[in-house]
Amino acid sequence: MHQITSQIRTVVPDVFRTMIRAELTCDVELEDQVSEPWPAIGVIGSVSFTGKMSGVLYLIFPEPLALFTTESILGKGPYQENDINDVVGEMTNIVTGNLKSKMCDLGFNCQLSIPTVVRGNDITIDTTIGNLALINSFKVLETNENLSVLIFATLEK
Amino acid sequence: MHQITSQIRTVVPDVFRTMIRAELTCDVELEDQVSEPWPAIGVIGSVSFTGKMSGVLYLIFPEPLALFTTESILGKGPYQENDINDVVGEMTNIVTGNLKSKMCDLGFNCQLSIPTVVRGNDITIDTTIGNLALINSFKVLETNENLSVLIFATLEK
Repeated sequence: MHQITSQIRTVVPDVFRTMIRAELTCDVELEDQVSEPWPAIGVIGSVSFTGKMSGVLYLIFPEPLALFTTESILGKGPYQENDINDVVGEMTNIVTGNLKSKMCDLGFNCQLSIPTVVRGNDITIDTTIGNLALINSFKVLETNENLSVLIFATLEK
Repeated sequence: MHQITSQIRTVVPDVFRTMIRAELTCDVELEDQVSEPWPAIGVIGSVSFTGKMSGVLYLIFPEPLALFTTESILGKGPYQENDINDVVGEMTNIVTGNLKSKMCDLGFNCQLSIPTVVRGNDITIDTTIGNLALINSFKVLETNENLSVLIFATLEK
């Protein structure tokens, strides 16, 4: 298991517990390395980082989980696509910010870019050769859905 | 017209002329500001940047244009999805690197992250409130298709 994976498995449940009081469990048996373009559906937040750790982190929300997260933060809806995108972008920003802090403690300082949100039903996400590609999936007990966390990164030696 | 737009309208045709000897023309009458999530189809490269200019640049290739670009660089195919993704990622890297250099001359220094590639047929791309969102579309004369360049950014005063 890569050191970034062990940080993500701490950070992501912590952020969701704090922000929306949801319990996330990770399948620790699952392999964390990705070798093919990763298929994704739903609302996908991303935040990039540059520095001694350079790359991008994606939080992949199935649509009902994106709505559940929005209602947990803003109260009962209805909500527009824009509102949900803002919440998904902000959750991705918080997760990446927390990961940045942990990786900084390990000597991999970096700066964060702005959050963006991609939506679609038949997406693949890829990086170019040579970058580290890690996937982690978390079950959200309250909704019985999975949040996936995909990260592409290079670490400076 | 934003100063980033005027740089993009120089950089993008320059890179395509140098790399694949294609002529790109830009519809200069087109409004460059985006206020809604942007719809995209095809092969979409992205590279992020942090610093005095922070954000992400997307190169949106229709699939035939992505293949044309790959064959112009690597020679006649056939090519796997991975090969095309690598070329789209690299073209996005070169465009963003050139934009970085121009913006650096204007005082907006930044560092680049790694290239990633998203594919899909029914995608929207959004950013959170407050970021600059600019679109530019270029006709590629050789293929009669459009390359779109979407950029989300914040500039530090």
